[in-house]
Amino acid sequence: MHFMDPKAEGWTLGELAQLVGGRLEGPAHFRVSRPVRADSNDPNGIAFAENQAFADAAAGVGALIVSDEIDAHGRPAIRVTQPRLAFGRLLHFAHRPIPIMEGIHPAAQIDPRAWVDQTASIGPFVVIEKDARVGARAKVHAGAYIGEACVVGEDTIVYPGVVLMQDVRIGDRCILHANCVLGADGFGFVWDGKQRVKVPQVGGVVLGDDVEVGAGTCIDRSTCGETVVGDGTKLDNMVQVAHNVTIGTSVVIAAHTSIAGSVRVGNRVVMGGQTAIADHRSVGDDIMLGGRTGVMQDLTKSGEYFGLPAQDVRESLRQMLAIKELPALLKRVKALEAQVAQMEDKE
Amino acid sequence: MHFMDPKAEGWTLGELAQLVGGRLEGPAHFRVSRPVRADSNDPNGIAFAENQAFADAAAGVGALIVSDEIDAHGRPAIRVTQPRLAFGRLLHFAHRPIPIMEGIHPAAQIDPRAWVDQTASIGPFVVIEKDARVGARAKVHAGAYIGEACVVGEDTIVYPGVVLMQDVRIGDRCILHANCVLGADGFGFVWDGKQRVKVPQVGGVVLGDDVEVGAGTCIDRSTCGETVVGDGTKLDNMVQVAHNVTIGTSVVIAAHTSIAGSVRVGNRVVMGGQTAIADHRSVGDDIMLGGRTGVMQDLTKSGEYFGLPAQDVRESLRQMLAIKELPALLKRVKALEAQVAQMEDKE
Amino acid sequence: MHFMDPKAEGWTLGELAQLVGGRLEGPAHFRVSRPVRADSNDPNGIAFAENQAFADAAAGVGALIVSDEIDAHGRPAIRVTQPRLAFGRLLHFAHRPIPIMEGIHPAAQIDPRAWVDQTASIGPFVVIEKDARVGARAKVHAGAYIGEACVVGEDTIVYPGVVLMQDVRIGDRCILHANCVLGADGFGFVWDGKQRVKVPQVGGVVLGDDVEVGAGTCIDRSTCGETVVGDGTKLDNMVQVAHNVTIGTSVVIAAHTSIAGSVRVGNRVVMGGQTAIADHRSVGDDIMLGGRTGVMQDLTKSGEYFGLPAQDVRESLRQMLAIKELPALLKRVKALEAQVAQMEDKE
Repeated sequence: MHFMDPKAEGWTLGELAQLVGGRLEGPAHFRVSRPVRADSNDPNGIAFAENQAFADAAAGVGALIVSDEIDAHGRPAIRVTQPRLAFGRLLHFAHRPIPIMEGIHPAAQIDPRAWVDQTASIGPFVVIEKDARVGARAKVHAGAYIGEACVVGEDTIVYPGVVLMQDVRIGDRCILHANCVLGADGFGFVWDGKQRVKVPQVGGVVLGDDVEVGAGTCIDRSTCGETVVGDGTKLDNMVQVAHNVTIGTSVVIAAHTSIAGSVRVGNRVVMGGQTAIADHRSVGDDIMLGGRTGVMQDLTKSGEYFGLPAQDVRESLRQMLAIKELPALLKRVKALEAQVAQMEDKE
Repeated sequence: MHFMDPKAEGWTLGELAQLVGGRLEGPAHFRVSRPVRADSNDPNGIAFAENQAFADAAAGVGALIVSDEIDAHGRPAIRVTQPRLAFGRLLHFAHRPIPIMEGIHPAAQIDPRAWVDQTASIGPFVVIEKDARVGARAKVHAGAYIGEACVVGEDTIVYPGVVLMQDVRIGDRCILHANCVLGADGFGFVWDGKQRVKVPQVGGVVLGDDVEVGAGTCIDRSTCGETVVGDGTKLDNMVQVAHNVTIGTSVVIAAHTSIAGSVRVGNRVVMGGQTAIADHRSVGDDIMLGGRTGVMQDLTKSGEYFGLPAQDVRESLRQMLAIKELPALLKRVKALEAQVAQMEDKE
Repeated sequence: MHFMDPKAEGWTLGELAQLVGGRLEGPAHFRVSRPVRADSNDPNGIAFAENQAFADAAAGVGALIVSDEIDAHGRPAIRVTQPRLAFGRLLHFAHRPIPIMEGIHPAAQIDPRAWVDQTASIGPFVVIEKDARVGARAKVHAGAYIGEACVVGEDTIVYPGVVLMQDVRIGDRCILHANCVLGADGFGFVWDGKQRVKVPQVGGVVLGDDVEVGAGTCIDRSTCGETVVGDGTKLDNMVQVAHNVTIGTSVVIAAHTSIAGSVRVGNRVVMGGQTAIADHRSVGDDIMLGGRTGVMQDLTKSGEYFGLPAQDVRESLRQMLAIKELPALLKRVKALEAQVAQMEDKE
């Protein structure tokens, strides 16, 4: 099938040069439709090139954003001092918000005891339960479920299929990506000798301001009190945050990371994908965990960690390299043992 | 935004002392709103403290549940012999079921050939396909999809966004958390020399009674026959159960665990988070797999396992510690080799 | 509850013998309801047995598909030269498509600026935004969200709860399983000295033809340009494909695999479950990555890899076995050091 470009009109190079504050090189009326990567072959795209190699590889794009010293090979260009920064601005211009009608869609189901700000937008097939609150300019997209006594902060965006179960409070300017689940029961059972008996999970979830939650990510409600995610923290897709966890501010957590029950994570922590933190452990401020690190003990000292168990990244990489020599080492030790035995025999 | 407490009325301490069968110490009319953790600073909360340290740390909470020998520092308290047990009861009192209207919501779509018990509750935007059955007192929440010939047992709760594809049978008193998917096609393809050809997946999924399935968890339908999860088994969030798997009773599986095709898991098995079991392997009864264990061979003997490949946990931890000494060991062996070579030269 | 068989009529053995082109052994009117595994005890099931052991274990099934040399112990049977192939055909007969009404369900919300082919089927509570296109014979099931300027190709199936955010183009004959999310924002932030600032993600996602995407899987939109998945590629459940990734054709990726940003994956690559590929790495054609492999460097040579870091599978397994000997090795080296020291003392 042929793809109809939704933004076929795009911008003229002249418009863009003005928008990013650059010097036009080429026809002002030349038209581009979207920002692209330098190595794409998109004649309607505009890319940036930070060095000559990128500019050389950009033969297929319609136009380039480059600094003065770069040879653009005669292609239409916008000359700026910081191409990356200018391209970042272009991304902002190119951003189209996910569409949503103003006001409350007639096909939404809103409990009369819920409160929705008159400047908020509520999409079709959304359910909002009693005692829930949706703040000013918030957008709740199609099919989302805002449970009992949940709060959606001002300017917060809730994408399709998101579920907030009960007692989940989201701060302002947050983004909840599609199909994430906040406030499902924590995973708590006691063995009564015959079976697992469920421990009621009656706490909530609290997210600060400017938090982003990835698609499919799950943040469980606390047993009591709250599971907490601090201001400015960003969670990637399919991250697991178990019950009773507390995560600090400006933390970044990549996909498939598992944070077990009652863990405490400090501020400005960064976690690579598939990281795991065992239950009841704590990770201090300004700690960086490489991908697939497994935290089995408390980490307090800031710095970079890696491996299972988590160790100083240099230590861990040194061990990783040493393991490659292990099969040979076994042979070397065997040889040494034979040599020494022989030498002892001679004595 | 200010959070309006949904249960602001709460309970009086006198009521609670009666409910948990404890001795009141302080004003009977003192009011608390919710159970909280001892270290929260919630003046409307009631916490429990099992030892003096917890009681000392609980300066900010409104009231305490403690045993006789604990000094409550003059705060309102309920005295009981087993504070943890009494607090567990309190969690039950504090539990509010997720709201759902009785009967069938007018905005649900139910095939006339489906059968819904008249005591079941069906939320808005739910779809129930032909030949599906929903049992007595079952609750199917907003936006769930109950596919063709699926069965929802009595007293079972299906939370928002859950999808049962086709031929998925859920037992009684189960809980399916938001956005989990049961009955998606198993991952089966054959390479015909040019491309992957899909093997039709025509089997189903069967869950026993008292099973809990976490948010976002996926249990695939069998190629033929059934993927089975036994009575009383509890799955955490984002667990993968592939096609043709059989899981026993009273099993507990933590988040992000991957159980590959045709695996068999016995009874009372416990798996930590991010565990993996390779396809066609079996794990016997009463086996405990530590977090991120990788099962590459059948495990039959009950006990605790850890690591990749899965081994006796003590063995595995010993090896993990030994790896830390490996870089130094390489140097030591090099030194030994030099020493021995020198000694041999002397001979 | 009793499970009513949705396909109780089934087939007679005579019909089936004709359908698979086999020789009937037993009553032509004997009736079976479904294909089953040989070890099931389903008297209404028909199984296949490739060898005598499987046939011996199949005492409980109603009928068997076997080759001539197998003893069927007198049970009704269909004799064929290739039982597995014949059973595969039977799976096709037994396959029942997920039900969907023809045309557009009245409870769907379709933007008048969207284009839906008149032969496509759109289920209840589906949302289709402006400038989206749904091709001929495509099926979009209940509660799916087809975002702005998204394209669903011909004969493609979109299962319940799927979310396509914006600028997501799906090829022909694709299958998107329940609750997968395509086109959520890539995980891109810059630290401005005080906080993480979001990098707008304005690119799209492009899937080729015959692609299958597992339940709950997430494929993020590109920062600019497109995240690409090639023709015939199959993704299992809960796979993470980050922004700017390019995946080739006929690739197979098992559950819980994480592919980080800007990774390039070649053609016919196979990845086991929980695999990870670090950002900006590339994996060449015809490479097989064992379960939980962690790719930290580019892999160019075709072959089988395993471990963290990814290495030739034989090397990696050799190291894995050597680690088991490491605790003993430490003792052996200690003993050697003592011996050598003693020998040096004697000199």
